Amino acid sequence: MDNVSVIAVASIITAGLTTGIGCMFPALSEGKAVATALSSIAQQPDAAPTITRTLFVGLAMIESTAIYCFVVSMILIFANPFWTHIIAK
Amino acid sequence: MDNVSVIAVASIITAGLTTGIGCMFPALSEGKAVATALSSIAQQPDAAPTITRTLFVGLAMIESTAIYCFVVSMILIFANPFWTHIIAK
Amino acid sequence: MDNVSVIAVASIITAGLTTGIGCMFPALSEGKAVATALSSIAQQPDAAPTITRTLFVGLAMIESTAIYCFVVSMILIFANPFWTHIIAK
Amino acid sequence: MDNVSVIAVASIITAGLTTGIGCMFPALSEGKAVATALSSIAQQPDAAPTITRTLFVGLAMIESTAIYCFVVSMILIFANPFWTHIIAK
Amino acid sequence: MDNVSVIAVASIITAGLTTGIGCMFPALSEGKAVATALSSIAQQPDAAPTITRTLFVGLAMIESTAIYCFVVSMILIFANPFWTHIIAK
Amino acid sequence: MDNVSVIAVASIITAGLTTGIGCMFPALSEGKAVATALSSIAQQPDAAPTITRTLFVGLAMIESTAIYCFVVSMILIFANPFWTHIIAK
Amino acid sequence: MDNVSVIAVASIITAGLTTGIGCMFPALSEGKAVATALSSIAQQPDAAPTITRTLFVGLAMIESTAIYCFVVSMILIFANPFWTHIIAK
Amino acid sequence: MDNVSVIAVASIITAGLTTGIGCMFPALSEGKAVATALSSIAQQPDAAPTITRTLFVGLAMIESTAIYCFVVSMILIFANPFWTHIIAK
Amino acid sequence: MDNVSVIAVASIITAGLTTGIGCMFPALSEGKAVATALSSIAQQPDAAPTITRTLFVGLAMIESTAIYCFVVSMILIFANPFWTHIIAK
Amino acid sequence: MDNVSVIAVASIITAGLTTGIGCMFPALSEGKAVATALSSIAQQPDAAPTITRTLFVGLAMIESTAIYCFVVSMILIFANPFWTHIIAK
Amino acid sequence: MDNVSVIAVASIITAGLTTGIGCMFPALSEGKAVATALSSIAQQPDAAPTITRTLFVGLAMIESTAIYCFVVSMILIFANPFWTHIIAK
Amino acid sequence: MDNVSVIAVASIITAGLTTGIGCMFPALSEGKAVATALSSIAQQPDAAPTITRTLFVGLAMIESTAIYCFVVSMILIFANPFWTHIIAK
Amino acid sequence: MDNVSVIAVASIITAGLTTGIGCMFPALSEGKAVATALSSIAQQPDAAPTITRTLFVGLAMIESTAIYCFVVSMILIFANPFWTHIIAK
Amino acid sequence: MDNVSVIAVASIITAGLTTGIGCMFPALSEGKAVATALSSIAQQPDAAPTITRTLFVGLAMIESTAIYCFVVSMILIFANPFWTHIIAK
Repeated sequence: MDNVSVIAVASIITAGLTTGIGCMFPALSEGKAVATALSSIAQQPDAAPTITRTLFVGLAMIESTAIYCFVVSMILIFANPFWTHIIAK
Repeated sequence: MDNVSVIAVASIITAGLTTGIGCMFPALSEGKAVATALSSIAQQPDAAPTITRTLFVGLAMIESTAIYCFVVSMILIFANPFWTHIIAK
Repeated sequence: MDNVSVIAVASIITAGLTTGIGCMFPALSEGKAVATALSSIAQQPDAAPTITRTLFVGLAMIESTAIYCFVVSMILIFANPFWTHIIAK
Repeated sequence: MDNVSVIAVASIITAGLTTGIGCMFPALSEGKAVATALSSIAQQPDAAPTITRTLFVGLAMIESTAIYCFVVSMILIFANPFWTHIIAK
Repeated sequence: MDNVSVIAVASIITAGLTTGIGCMFPALSEGKAVATALSSIAQQPDAAPTITRTLFVGLAMIESTAIYCFVVSMILIFANPFWTHIIAK
Repeated sequence: MDNVSVIAVASIITAGLTTGIGCMFPALSEGKAVATALSSIAQQPDAAPTITRTLFVGLAMIESTAIYCFVVSMILIFANPFWTHIIAK
Repeated sequence: MDNVSVIAVASIITAGLTTGIGCMFPALSEGKAVATALSSIAQQPDAAPTITRTLFVGLAMIESTAIYCFVVSMILIFANPFWTHIIAK
Repeated sequence: MDNVSVIAVASIITAGLTTGIGCMFPALSEGKAVATALSSIAQQPDAAPTITRTLFVGLAMIESTAIYCFVVSMILIFANPFWTHIIAK
Repeated sequence: MDNVSVIAVASIITAGLTTGIGCMFPALSEGKAVATALSSIAQQPDAAPTITRTLFVGLAMIESTAIYCFVVSMILIFANPFWTHIIAK
Repeated sequence: MDNVSVIAVASIITAGLTTGIGCMFPALSEGKAVATALSSIAQQPDAAPTITRTLFVGLAMIESTAIYCFVVSMILIFANPFWTHIIAK
Repeated sequence: MDNVSVIAVASIITAGLTTGIGCMFPALSEGKAVATALSSIAQQPDAAPTITRTLFVGLAMIESTAIYCFVVSMILIFANPFWTHIIAK
Repeated sequence: MDNVSVIAVASIITAGLTTGIGCMFPALSEGKAVATALSSIAQQPDAAPTITRTLFVGLAMIESTAIYCFVVSMILIFANPFWTHIIAK
Repeated sequence: MDNVSVIAVASIITAGLTTGIGCMFPALSEGKAVATALSSIAQQPDAAPTITRTLFVGLAMIESTAIYCFVVSMILIFANPFWTHIIAK
Repeated sequence: MDNVSVIAVASIITAGLTTGIGCMFPALSEGKAVATALSSIAQQPDAAPTITRTLFVGLAMIESTAIYCFVVSMILIFANPFWTHIIAK
């Protein structure tokens, strides 16, 4: 493998794994948050507006960690400085 | 293996694993959310509309992380810049 | 191994593993959702129609993540652009 | 190993593992669903018909993920396009 | 190792592992189902006929996933198309 | 290693591991079933005959998965078609 | 390593691991069964004869899986057909 | 691989994994914190302002550990002293 | 390594690991059985003789699986047929 | 790889992993602490000032272990004595 | 490495690991047994003599599995028949 | 790699991993201790001074194990006798 | 590596790992025993002398397994018969 | 790598890992002990002196296992007989 190939391969694999791994736990957390929200609404229907509002803020925070991973992945595929340097050479 | 093969192989394996791994936890979370929704409805049948509405919003958020992985997978198979560069050479 | 073989091998293994891994957690989640549905019906028999309806919508969402994996698997076996490119060469 | 052997070996191993891994969690889920059904019947004997009917629909959904894996396995053994291409060459 | 050996070895190992792995979780599930059946009978002795009937249907469903694995194993040992092709050559 | 050795070695290792792995979970399940039977008898001594009868049927089902593994193991040691073919050559 | 050594080594390692692994879970199960028996006796002293009788039958079933592994181990050490064939050559 | 490539590859892989791994547990923790906040609000609706204020401070603390990882990742991609030194040579 | 060494090394490692692994779970089980016995005695002091008698029978059964492993270990060190055959040659 | 490269690579990988691994458990702990704080406030609103004060002190202690890892990471990237020695040579 | 070294190395590593692994679970079990004893005494102070007597018998049984491992370790270091045979040659 | 490099690399990797691994469980423990302290204060506000005092002593003890690891790490980076010996040669 | 080095290296690594692994579970067990002792004293302050006495006997038993590992470690560093034999040669 | 380097590398890695691994579980145990102490004080404030005294004795016992590991680490870095022998040669 020459230099171009090896950097391409590393970028492909890392981009995939970063998104794959990085989306696992945010999904898990959102599932947990949603599940708790549902049982909380069932337990205290009057507090539903406060609960759903806090839920959506929380989901946004959790989603942000998944988005960090997705951003790193996109940078590695479409804006990779190492790849730019190599193919420019 | 020449350069073309190695990038093809890396793309194939990464595309498969990213989808495979990335769908595990969203599935788990959706299962948890659905299960909690069901038991919440059983516990408080009057709140069923609020619960199912919150459930569907939550499922959409969780599904989004699985879709990030599926998107990365599809990019690697059908819109892979590294593959384009190599076969153009 | 020449280029054709190595891509064939990678496609075979990835197709198998993607389906194998990707079906694990949806199965688990569906089991959990069904189990909760059953105990919810036992607890509140009057809410059975609402529960089964929500259950089927939820199962469809969960099954969708398994289907993503199955689709990637089928693409890798029957519509693989890398394989097409190699054997066309 | 020549090309024919390596593809045969990859198909054999992948076929076995896909079925082996892919049947683990459906079995687990069906066990959980059946177990919950049994305890639900014990708790609410009057709802037995609804419970068993929901159980069988749920088992069919769960079994479907095991069948995806079995299908991929059978395709790899008896209708493998890569194998067909290689031995036709 | 020549081609014949390597396919034989792969078939032997895969046959063993597929059965070994594929029987783990069905056994676990059957244990869980039987255990729940026993405690359900103890809790509600009057529902024993319904419980045992549902139990046996459920055990058959669970056993089916173990049988898929056993079938793949037997195909690999006694009706292996790759082996047939190689020794026919 | 020549062909004879490598097949012998693969058969030995696979036979051992298949039995070793395949007996783990049936043992676990039987332990769980027996344990539940005991606590069920303690809880409802009058249902002891029904419980022990269901227990023995269940233990037979669970034992069957262990026996599949043991059978594959014995086939690999004493009725191995690959070994027969190699030493006949 | 010549053929004799490699088969001897494989037999030694497999014999050890099969017994080592295969005794883990039966031991665990027996511990669980015994523990449940003890707490059941404490809870319902009058049912002690039925409990101990069921316990011993269950322990025998569980021990049987450990004995399968021990038997395979002994066959591999003292009645190994592959070893017999090699040293007879 | 020459020096430039190997450092590029190491930076790519490490940047991806650091973000991928480092975002797992913060996501999990935020999910837990949000879930507890929701059930706390359901339990004590009057304390909602105090709870959400403490929640947001806590989420910021937890997010900070994810940001450490993201920062290291960005340093490795865009401000890597080792890469600067190598390509300056 | 010549033949004598490799068999000696395999015997040493296997003997150690078999005992090491094989003693883990019996120890765990005995701990569980003893712990349950103690809490059962505390709960029902009058049944102490029955409990301790059942405990000792159970401990003997569990210890037997540890002894299987110890026996295999001792056979491999002091009565190893493969070693005897090699050094006799 | 020459000496400069190998030290650079080791520093890059170690810096990433140390931060990645080292931030996992502090995040987990902070999540747990915040979650407990929230449920404690819900349970005893009057003690909120004491709880939040103790929470912040505790979070600082926990954060300190994450900072140790971040510090080691920064030392390896920006103040690495081994790198200094090599490039000075 | 010549024969003497390789046997020495295998003995050293195996001796260490056997003791290291083999002491894990007995320690765990003894901790569990002691912990249960303490809580049993707190619950039923009058049964303290019976409890401590049963505890010491149980600890001795559990310790015996740790001693098996220690014995194998000592045999491998100070009474190793393979080592004796090699250095005698 | 010459001697200097290999020792530098080993020191870098070990220093990072020791801190990374060694800070995981202290962080976990401190989180648990802080969480328990918070719920204890909520349960018994009058004992807050005693609880926080005991908490701080305990946190210091736990932090000490993290500091052992940090110290070993610092020794390996800044006061490494092996490195001193090699570069002095 | 010559013979002296390889034995030295094996001894160093084994000594470290034996102590490192062998101290994990005794520490865990002692933590459990101490924790149970503390909650037992809180539950039954009058039984404190009996509890602490039993605790110290139990801690000594548990500590003994850690000491076995430490002893093996010390033997490997300071009284290693294999090392003595090699350097005497 | 010559002899001096390989022993230095093994000592460095082992020293780091022994401390890193060996401090994990003591930290965990101390966290558990401290946590239980805090909840015990909250539950029974009058027994605080006895509890804290027992806690400190217990923490000392647990800390001792961490210190064993730290001592082995320090011996390997600063008083290593193998290193002394090699560099004296």
